[in-house]
Amino acid sequence: MNKLKEYLNSHEISEIHPSDIAKILKQLDDSEFTDAIKLVPKNLIGDVALALPDRYFDDVVESLSVDELSHAVSELESDDQLEFMQGLGEVDENVASQVFDTLHEDDRQEITKLQTYDEDEAGRYMQLEVFTALKDEIVHDVVKRFAALRKANELENVQNLFITNKENKLRYTVGLDDLLIFDFTKTLKENIEDSDDSFEPKIAYDRDDIKEVVHYFEEYDLSVMPIVNAYGVLLGRITSDDIYDIINEHATEQMYNLAGVDDEAEEDDEILKAGRKRATWLSLNLFTAIAASLVIGMFSNTLESMVALAVLMPIVASMGGNAGTQSLTVVVRQLALGEISQGDAMRIIKKEVSISLGNGILFAIIMGFVAAAWFDMSMLGVVIALSMVINLLAAGFFGAIIPLFLQRMDIDPAIGSTVILTTVTDVVGFLSFLGLATLILL
Amino acid sequence: MNKLKEYLNSHEISEIHPSDIAKILKQLDDSEFTDAIKLVPKNLIGDVALALPDRYFDDVVESLSVDELSHAVSELESDDQLEFMQGLGEVDENVASQVFDTLHEDDRQEITKLQTYDEDEAGRYMQLEVFTALKDEIVHDVVKRFAALRKANELENVQNLFITNKENKLRYTVGLDDLLIFDFTKTLKENIEDSDDSFEPKIAYDRDDIKEVVHYFEEYDLSVMPIVNAYGVLLGRITSDDIYDIINEHATEQMYNLAGVDDEAEEDDEILKAGRKRATWLSLNLFTAIAASLVIGMFSNTLESMVALAVLMPIVASMGGNAGTQSLTVVVRQLALGEISQGDAMRIIKKEVSISLGNGILFAIIMGFVAAAWFDMSMLGVVIALSMVINLLAAGFFGAIIPLFLQRMDIDPAIGSTVILTTVTDVVGFLSFLGLATLILL
Repeated sequence: MNKLKEYLNSHEISEIHPSDIAKILKQLDDSEFTDAIKLVPKNLIGDVALALPDRYFDDVVESLSVDELSHAVSELESDDQLEFMQGLGEVDENVASQVFDTLHEDDRQEITKLQTYDEDEAGRYMQLEVFTALKDEIVHDVVKRFAALRKANELENVQNLFITNKENKLRYTVGLDDLLIFDFTKTLKENIEDSDDSFEPKIAYDRDDIKEVVHYFEEYDLSVMPIVNAYGVLLGRITSDDIYDIINEHATEQMYNLAGVDDEAEEDDEILKAGRKRATWLSLNLFTAIAASLVIGMFSNTLESMVALAVLMPIVASMGGNAGTQSLTVVVRQLALGEISQGDAMRIIKKEVSISLGNGILFAIIMGFVAAAWFDMSMLGVVIALSMVINLLAAGFFGAIIPLFLQRMDIDPAIGSTVILTTVTDVVGFLSFLGLATLILL
Repeated sequence: MNKLKEYLNSHEISEIHPSDIAKILKQLDDSEFTDAIKLVPKNLIGDVALALPDRYFDDVVESLSVDELSHAVSELESDDQLEFMQGLGEVDENVASQVFDTLHEDDRQEITKLQTYDEDEAGRYMQLEVFTALKDEIVHDVVKRFAALRKANELENVQNLFITNKENKLRYTVGLDDLLIFDFTKTLKENIEDSDDSFEPKIAYDRDDIKEVVHYFEEYDLSVMPIVNAYGVLLGRITSDDIYDIINEHATEQMYNLAGVDDEAEEDDEILKAGRKRATWLSLNLFTAIAASLVIGMFSNTLESMVALAVLMPIVASMGGNAGTQSLTVVVRQLALGEISQGDAMRIIKKEVSISLGNGILFAIIMGFVAAAWFDMSMLGVVIALSMVINLLAAGFFGAIIPLFLQRMDIDPAIGSTVILTTVTDVVGFLSFLGLATLILL
């Protein structure tokens, strides 16, 4: 807490950054945190709350009155306002509703507007504050207007001027680096016509899938993108900082899906919620593990007459599961990064099968010798070697085919694919190993 | 190929984007690709080659002469030049060396300079082209110089003016949005003094870990950051498009590490290379699987007298492995995102142990009844229930402690952690289940 005081005293107001405050707050324990939060300048507290990991959000908002909350929200940009109000609604719907009522009419309208979008729609991530002009305006006048807006803190972090027609339909995007070298005495239109450059805007639609928009930013190296509606009317913009967050969130979601974890439940402070979501996946896994055990049960007689099989069978299943997870992870990730195109399915399957077959043969030979020596029975080596080749072949094939199939069905290829895959490798592993043992050894 | 012709004919030169060409090329099969690549405008071919997935790079460069390659490189920005030359060196070192010799002296110097940095250093990702001025310059003169540089295509995508002293040490960063509303008749210094805003630059050092720099971009919502050396001399800048790529690469690396896959080997076109890297991890897994089997082997007598144990034991191991992977993935990811701070270890361990213990008890009860009914033996239900609680408890504890420990040791917590974890859950699972069975049932 002294650290925070020190920071606040040693910096000019214009130099204080919400993220710096958040960094200091994160280091504090619970009791210090509650006191320290009171020291944060009230116009920054909204940004600080959003810069902290989600689990701190409750503590911050619970330390503030309705008036303070309302002030905090009014200082935020439109997309952050929505995020803050949603977080607040999850903490206390009643307080959120009171805060909403005390907000300025404009803020209320903007929040309501952004709320109409789904979480996977580009519109949800827009900032509504944009710098616009008509093409017949003289550059000098536009710049003067811009200066006034900047002074009033209405526009931050501007990189482009958006030129619209009178119906607010987007016509051109002019980077400030271009605007700066325009002839200030001429109109925008004249400058554009005189230039060799193209001012054709790269746009995204408010209803576009946000994942597509992120790909667009990545492919075209953009740092800002205007968002328009179906009629081409300019609604707002998405900036690079949103894109960082979304890329990270999607990667987290994907990793968590592969592991059978829910990303939203985990961000919460409530252990019960995260635990319940994890239990859902574990129960599916229990179900498939029992299925694999039923396969083993079919071979009770074989196992009874040769206990070595019980000792060795987990190795076959484990190697299959691991090789399959390797294939699966690579295919899921390359699908997400857009590195696998439509006609690519065959290439991917071939690649994964080749690799897993190659490694299958390699480890079959090694494990064959190990098993034969361990139990002093050469035919046991042959059985485990054969079943290892079969299982790793299945691992590569299903590791590729499962995510490709899910993607084709428009299901996120990370969801549930690990459970399906390990069911396959367990069943194939136990079936081939115990089946071959029954045929060859008994 | 006709699609590419169509695109090129229907767009003005200034509207053609390398990423659009790359998108069309990706759809083509091998024979069409080789012909189509010849149609790409030579000044764009470098950008196109870098915009394509890595496996296409060979095909592109092999279709070009040394002169064409040299021209392609000269059209790129400095950080892309380095990337291109490195890719070329991997395809054919001899050709790369010839191309390097034909480059302009400036380009050669820049490439050499960037090459001195490691892959995890910020300097490696810099663009060396920056827009600078001295603080005593009149704004109008600075803008005039900028216009000339823009016309000569020396500077692209500029968002900031960097103000340095005569020794080229960075003093201030002025966003173009601020520059635009400066008084053009005054010096930069006068404008800065007249303003209420802070122009204190947010900088990163060339030797900084690139992961730290990425966190900095994320925390402070930056789209550009100047890079200086240890003396504060301005060297270049990193822009948001680099950050998108790095965030994606790191997430891929992390997912691949968790699955025992090498990200660089997988990007390559060579199946053998990827296969060999995967084999390394599989052999580690084979080793640990054999260790788990040795544990089973200790209980041969128990298994011989009750084959039901062989049927059920994979369930205990599988549930432990899955619950552990859940914990592990969440901790690894939250460490990477900086959501776990130094004093947090105890909180994380407590959380993971609570969740896995809760789920352990839940599934122990379910599986206890299932096993008791299946084999009509209530004490078997007790044994599997107890071992399930023990194994899921171990899963949660080790799922949290392994990545936290690796992080503390300055090792990437994703590397090898899955193998260590599943070894623990296999060994604890088999040991507790078969051990308890020996004690209680025999």
